[in-house]
Amino acid sequence: MSEPLAKKLKYRFNDPHYLKVALTHCSKGSEHNERLEFLGDAVVNFVIADILYRQFPGATEGELSRWRASLVNRDTLADLARQFELGKYIFLGPGEIKSGGQTRSSILSCAMEAIIGAVYLDGGFEATHERISAWYQDLLQSLSSAASHKDSKTVLQEYVQGLRLALPVYTVEKIEGEAHQQRFTISCEVEHLDIKAIGMGTSRRRGEQAAAQAMLAEIKRGKK
Amino acid sequence: MSEPLAKKLKYRFNDPHYLKVALTHCSKGSEHNERLEFLGDAVVNFVIADILYRQFPGATEGELSRWRASLVNRDTLADLARQFELGKYIFLGPGEIKSGGQTRSSILSCAMEAIIGAVYLDGGFEATHERISAWYQDLLQSLSSAASHKDSKTVLQEYVQGLRLALPVYTVEKIEGEAHQQRFTISCEVEHLDIKAIGMGTSRRRGEQAAAQAMLAEIKRGKK
Repeated sequence: MSEPLAKKLKYRFNDPHYLKVALTHCSKGSEHNERLEFLGDAVVNFVIADILYRQFPGATEGELSRWRASLVNRDTLADLARQFELGKYIFLGPGEIKSGGQTRSSILSCAMEAIIGAVYLDGGFEATHERISAWYQDLLQSLSSAASHKDSKTVLQEYVQGLRLALPVYTVEKIEGEAHQQRFTISCEVEHLDIKAIGMGTSRRRGEQAAAQAMLAEIKRGKK
Repeated sequence: MSEPLAKKLKYRFNDPHYLKVALTHCSKGSEHNERLEFLGDAVVNFVIADILYRQFPGATEGELSRWRASLVNRDTLADLARQFELGKYIFLGPGEIKSGGQTRSSILSCAMEAIIGAVYLDGGFEATHERISAWYQDLLQSLSSAASHKDSKTVLQEYVQGLRLALPVYTVEKIEGEAHQQRFTISCEVEHLDIKAIGMGTSRRRGEQAAAQAMLAEIKRGKK
């Protein structure tokens, strides 16, 4: 059982008993995964808080809380569980097997939290931190690019407001490509700065963010 | 500032800037403690979950959750803050000073969480775990003795129910001492077991728990 799963998780348990308990639903046995789920929930909430804190030094407490809630919840944990095909390895009681428990998000997300708790008990804090970072890498990256795009427009706006200038003006210069693969070319201008920056993106919003980023780069270069 | 506080916390910051930020309320400065509070909240919830998980191997997930909520909340964190006299060291804006912010539980508990976050960034996970364990030692001890007392009566009840015997009968045998220092002597009997166990405690409830514990010890001895 544990070898293919260990490969997917990229974690090999020193004591496979932890993994077995983490995979045992309360419908199956008396030593089930609910305690480990409690522990794992606390671990993953802390590790994601830690990663967000360090990755976004400019974010407010409210943003960090919101982003963590978007990363640690039943759906994202069940998605992780599905990536690792946990459903194939979970021990369920006969009633749960019959009703398709191995595909249910609540059961999968609990098992995923229990596995996180088990990795912590088995391998310690550093190993768990490293694994959670890796498992969440894609989600963290999407969040990061969404957040940094948002930042460019906000940062630019705050900058021009600080100089008491008019707000940046974004203009769609060009739309290329077919319906599903459009590319937007957006210009960004700030009155009195005499700079026109160009950005491109797969949506108007993304193009504007890229243009704002280009404008910020121009302003920075002009200051040197 | 930091020397007397370091003595109380029994933690000396490598980088005192962390401590300064942790003590700065948002009414005071732009670099305030709200982000550290977010981080510290996650740390303390995890560390207490970890301690409870290990300390109570027989507890259910529900008990662990309930006990953690009783240990990590505004009141207990504000109490810790008061033990360390954090109010003396907090940086508040003039409005908050005027309205007595340094004694308010919300401000104190946030600063306490921020200090926990700051210790984590400054000293790493192991150091933080060690400090939280020490700061919570008394609360954990009371919880532990309350939980183990509770367990004795519950464990005994479950044991006799498993044998389909009548429930244990607790009788007050003696009450000694003056009003504030009474000592209750309680007997515990289980029909068909022919054992009478005696327990004493400063309340009737505590005496019953002690009697149940004594009964469990008798039963265990009889089995050997």
